Amino acid sequence: MRVLNDTISKVINYKFTDYAILEEALTHPSVNKRNSEDQVVSYERLEFLGDSVLNMVVSVMLFKMFPEEKEGALAKRKTDLVCGSTIANVAKEIELGNFIIMNNSERCNGGKCNLKNLENSLEALIGAIYIDGGLESVEKFIIRHWEKLAKDILDPPQDPKTSLQEWTQRNKLPLPKYELVKQTGPAHNPEFTISVCIESYDKVSACAPSKKIAEQKAAELILEKIKKTT
Amino acid sequence: MRVLNDTISKVINYKFTDYAILEEALTHPSVNKRNSEDQVVSYERLEFLGDSVLNMVVSVMLFKMFPEEKEGALAKRKTDLVCGSTIANVAKEIELGNFIIMNNSERCNGGKCNLKNLENSLEALIGAIYIDGGLESVEKFIIRHWEKLAKDILDPPQDPKTSLQEWTQRNKLPLPKYELVKQTGPAHNPEFTISVCIESYDKVSACAPSKKIAEQKAAELILEKIKKTT
Repeated sequence: MRVLNDTISKVINYKFTDYAILEEALTHPSVNKRNSEDQVVSYERLEFLGDSVLNMVVSVMLFKMFPEEKEGALAKRKTDLVCGSTIANVAKEIELGNFIIMNNSERCNGGKCNLKNLENSLEALIGAIYIDGGLESVEKFIIRHWEKLAKDILDPPQDPKTSLQEWTQRNKLPLPKYELVKQTGPAHNPEFTISVCIESYDKVSACAPSKKIAEQKAAELILEKIKKTT
Repeated sequence: MRVLNDTISKVINYKFTDYAILEEALTHPSVNKRNSEDQVVSYERLEFLGDSVLNMVVSVMLFKMFPEEKEGALAKRKTDLVCGSTIANVAKEIELGNFIIMNNSERCNGGKCNLKNLENSLEALIGAIYIDGGLESVEKFIIRHWEKLAKDILDPPQDPKTSLQEWTQRNKLPLPKYELVKQTGPAHNPEFTISVCIESYDKVSACAPSKKIAEQKAAELILEKIKKTT
């Protein structure tokens, strides 16, 4: 583990004091490793922790980086920066797959390149750096890899409803019409089906636990149709 | 603002260095306050930040408090502790409603007791303590109010599928049967409809973006039916 610590420290610019936590952060559940109390030890607990650490550090970074932006725009930026594919890309960048400890079957099934494994183990590594070195160390690591990504997004990513509305305006068409088709489920856990309709396209529907989300999903679906036909 | 700082510091056990950020954390959007660049200043940006700070501090607390628990159980505990109603309850405890700055119309409409206002302003206050005093100060505040709540939940809250399975076992019935009824939507954004069936009850269906969530929702719906008839 000491050798692993030396190797990975060059990649992540952080050296662990506690080797055990580094090992835990890199251990895929397939290893079925057990501690003295016969509990399975894998990166999953640290992944739970790392997810919230990454979320907070990215939120603070965006809060300071875009002092003039409203919370909605910040939230959209964050969603992009902490989504699975972004995390997996950072993991690829530091070639984290080479360090994940997994069983043969997982390795033969491409476990080192599996995006979910990359995402989970990077979150776990972030959790482990926090526990081992505190907020300052983990902030350094996250800022190093996420700051550039945050700066690359010039405008906050747009939601599908706004994109659809702008598309109809650009094409001089009437604005999209959203309609509630039905509401099912009990009052405290409803499911809304919303349809969206624009000129020259078939109506598209989507369902979700809130009208707002159902509208966004319907807009997303019709935008895909538009992309395919234009 | 200095008087407000003195009064609130006794309630929250934290004294702000920067009065402006305290004021921002307590300003409801209805005030329509504007800064020198004519941007609306309210607690919404700090609320975005505070949400992620609360999430992280609670995650770290649970991670250390329950070293033997798996990530699934920790996640369930966290969901309970950072949900809107829990946050609003803590806000009520410290009588935060009395400190929220709002316009007359909002006040006359019960804005001081509005659960959403309480939740949002407490999240903003947490964000403000983090910016003003750093992680240690905000950890102290969160631990003081959330540690007892975390300890009060003896077992991690159970998911509906587990509850339903245990109910059938207690009643010596065959286990619930889940079936995929249909899958709609594009591959990257699918919608699964899952039905669940148990003896002596009509089949119940639910839809969601993942099979797992659809199963949980279906189990929740049938549990409600059971409650109504038993």
